[in-house]
Amino acid sequence: MVSNKFFAIVAGIGPATGRSIALRFGEAYPVVLLSRRPESYQDVVAQINKTGGRAIGISTDVTDEASLAAALETIKKEFAGLQLAAAIYNVRPNLRGSRKPFLELTLDDLDKSLNGNVRGLFIFAQTVVPLLLQSVDSSPLPPTFILTGATASMRGSKLWSVIAAGKSGGRILTQSLAREFGPAGVHVAHAIIDGGIDEPDAAHAASNDATPDGKLSPYAIAESYWSLHTQHKSAWTQEIDLRPFNEKF
Amino acid sequence: MVSNKFFAIVAGIGPATGRSIALRFGEAYPVVLLSRRPESYQDVVAQINKTGGRAIGISTDVTDEASLAAALETIKKEFAGLQLAAAIYNVRPNLRGSRKPFLELTLDDLDKSLNGNVRGLFIFAQTVVPLLLQSVDSSPLPPTFILTGATASMRGSKLWSVIAAGKSGGRILTQSLAREFGPAGVHVAHAIIDGGIDEPDAAHAASNDATPDGKLSPYAIAESYWSLHTQHKSAWTQEIDLRPFNEKF
Amino acid sequence: MVSNKFFAIVAGIGPATGRSIALRFGEAYPVVLLSRRPESYQDVVAQINKTGGRAIGISTDVTDEASLAAALETIKKEFAGLQLAAAIYNVRPNLRGSRKPFLELTLDDLDKSLNGNVRGLFIFAQTVVPLLLQSVDSSPLPPTFILTGATASMRGSKLWSVIAAGKSGGRILTQSLAREFGPAGVHVAHAIIDGGIDEPDAAHAASNDATPDGKLSPYAIAESYWSLHTQHKSAWTQEIDLRPFNEKF
Amino acid sequence: MVSNKFFAIVAGIGPATGRSIALRFGEAYPVVLLSRRPESYQDVVAQINKTGGRAIGISTDVTDEASLAAALETIKKEFAGLQLAAAIYNVRPNLRGSRKPFLELTLDDLDKSLNGNVRGLFIFAQTVVPLLLQSVDSSPLPPTFILTGATASMRGSKLWSVIAAGKSGGRILTQSLAREFGPAGVHVAHAIIDGGIDEPDAAHAASNDATPDGKLSPYAIAESYWSLHTQHKSAWTQEIDLRPFNEKF
Repeated sequence: MVSNKFFAIVAGIGPATGRSIALRFGEAYPVVLLSRRPESYQDVVAQINKTGGRAIGISTDVTDEASLAAALETIKKEFAGLQLAAAIYNVRPNLRGSRKPFLELTLDDLDKSLNGNVRGLFIFAQTVVPLLLQSVDSSPLPPTFILTGATASMRGSKLWSVIAAGKSGGRILTQSLAREFGPAGVHVAHAIIDGGIDEPDAAHAASNDATPDGKLSPYAIAESYWSLHTQHKSAWTQEIDLRPFNEKF
Repeated sequence: MVSNKFFAIVAGIGPATGRSIALRFGEAYPVVLLSRRPESYQDVVAQINKTGGRAIGISTDVTDEASLAAALETIKKEFAGLQLAAAIYNVRPNLRGSRKPFLELTLDDLDKSLNGNVRGLFIFAQTVVPLLLQSVDSSPLPPTFILTGATASMRGSKLWSVIAAGKSGGRILTQSLAREFGPAGVHVAHAIIDGGIDEPDAAHAASNDATPDGKLSPYAIAESYWSLHTQHKSAWTQEIDLRPFNEKF
Repeated sequence: MVSNKFFAIVAGIGPATGRSIALRFGEAYPVVLLSRRPESYQDVVAQINKTGGRAIGISTDVTDEASLAAALETIKKEFAGLQLAAAIYNVRPNLRGSRKPFLELTLDDLDKSLNGNVRGLFIFAQTVVPLLLQSVDSSPLPPTFILTGATASMRGSKLWSVIAAGKSGGRILTQSLAREFGPAGVHVAHAIIDGGIDEPDAAHAASNDATPDGKLSPYAIAESYWSLHTQHKSAWTQEIDLRPFNEKF
Repeated sequence: MVSNKFFAIVAGIGPATGRSIALRFGEAYPVVLLSRRPESYQDVVAQINKTGGRAIGISTDVTDEASLAAALETIKKEFAGLQLAAAIYNVRPNLRGSRKPFLELTLDDLDKSLNGNVRGLFIFAQTVVPLLLQSVDSSPLPPTFILTGATASMRGSKLWSVIAAGKSGGRILTQSLAREFGPAGVHVAHAIIDGGIDEPDAAHAASNDATPDGKLSPYAIAESYWSLHTQHKSAWTQEIDLRPFNEKF
């Protein structure tokens, strides 16, 4: 049974992690899926609604204050009376073209990374943290904010300069939020996804059957996010790394 | 129902974390509790056996190869036919007297720390890792080795020199084990306990009612250890930090 | 005697560190001082030129590609025939107003930090790295790029969110540069200034007489930057921390 | 001219780093070279004494309290009236045989690492720190304690378990010393040597002519140690990494 008092928001829905997180949190809460394009969330929204959950998708550019403000209005209307229990920032700006020699990069490559990895996170956090704070006293599980990070959040490898600049900026910003809002009762965590992700995610139910291999199961990531959300207030994790059993590190 | 095929070992049973870990893993597995003195494990062994679980306690000095070898013999007899699914090194050498100005410390203070934090860990790992490797193909959950660490595993604070030397040595040794045995299918993790622990642990069942406060609930620690054990092979955590919501860090 | 073959660039001249770095590198090289406002560099340029060195100041906004390109034209004209031996990015965007509770910050606060700490660094590095690469074979000391960092480059403290996001982004970007351009012969280093700076800098000559205290002497910082520049190619430092003897860390 | 008021101690003299450090500090101070076997220091002691410096070698096992105490007596007699300005712990226990699969290691392998990397450091520090403290007010350069570390001080790589356990323990112990004795005026630093060392060290004078390559010049390491010793009290480095320009990291 999904909650009729609390809901969750997942920003950044792609073919793998975002959708698995929505499915996992959707087992407990009505969920809002934010993504630029409807194609990114339509089928998973339908899947959740079909299987006893409750989900809405909203086409949103989280790096745009007005767009996110409009999404918030929709949420307040659709989920009137519900309080926010969890917010996950899983936005992955398209930076495939940015993994190249430094002198071949343009300022636009950097800006894309900063925009999606830091600015969007900032805007999203400013939008949802006040809602999470309001849930501190009522939510059975501590209100939780999670940022999806990556190896590049921790180190600047060769050819990863602009990606790493953005990811590390987001990580450290989240650390500041943890130090500010933890004592106020909001659990802020950062997950370092260290390895390739096995996408597309097969259906939720099927994930447990997946043969263990060298790519992160998106469902396994989602399960760890859910574990973070269920942690007791006296023993919170601020940073977790997740990698396949055979990943070199 | 506890497993009749797999068991778990917890080394280091004190009034708080060790016993909570034993209780938590005891919900799923027969458990072996290792501690120097019977007083440390007797009541929790009784509690597990009384409530449908199966537990044995063995008086062992894990920093002594012969003592641990003898314990292993007992285990093989008592739990004949069972395979090892999880081993937790939770030994905390008594170092209260060692938190003092460097020039007031003796070599004996250092040796105590190295002995309990590194040598015991080494002997314990050499004893249990072969057993964990044997369970890789059969265990439903990945065989898991967890080391309980502390703030001092990460930094050498003033007055903590010998404690930190030992804790950090154990942490890094565990990291080597993770890199060597992860690809072989054994999940090796390190938990940084960053904060005071709320001891003594009230009974397992009561823990959920504990008013959230500034000390780590041992049961909450145990719950996170259990979560580590249940992680999918494609998304393992090597290092987790655990601290109260209001802890400064 | 200053070199008549090589020169250095210091971007970001304030009342303390930037000017000390210019003075120190000005003992060996003609130096270019880049700062937005002439008031920031005029007197130190005069001082260097008066005391046997050679310096020019150029009013430049390093976060603006066109402005930096124009500065480069001026440099090529003024220092025709000279090659670049060292480039220091010491820009400190004015973020005093940004050290406040997260929910009181505006996107503009974040943008200022990202602009000065990451975007300007990116533009500056794209401008100077090609010049440093050209000097690899001829320069007696390895061509060097140094970024001035801070405590916030390493951790996101409470109230420091936007400053830390920018500083950490710059740090990690620099790490990528080190991994890419080190093997090509350019020494890329990051300095963590951990503590308050003793500004304004007394005259260069007087610095050695300064009574040791709890604030970093800008000249001492400059001296360590110079040491980085003189390191042998087989033993380079990528990251150095600098803090007063009595600073807590 | 070497000082007639202060001296330096270097513990751990092998064919490369230790001897280069002794040569470098021997340019400024009378130096004591501590090593187990006379063969390790005899020629470099002779070289220093022949070239205008002053050096003594003492066969010492620094991991043995009595042996180090005896060495101290000799030093007090030989260098009567001199004060200690710098002490470097450069002991590298012979652990070549210890770089192997964890399950093939013996407790003796671990003990060798702990003994040389942590216990010897502890004993040495307890011996020299009181002497360094006595020099705080009189020494022109801040009294300095330096530990030679390695990549294994920072991470536990596969097959490096016992080496890394010892090196990391030594690093963190040194960090505690820095936090305790920095405010008292003693500069405590740790150097991470990340890469192979170019040994044997050619003569001191010849080092500058060495063709830059992929191995650390011991003289370059020594030069950086000297730089640490000369740092102004307001801008000390606690940790420095040193690696060849083309080293992957």
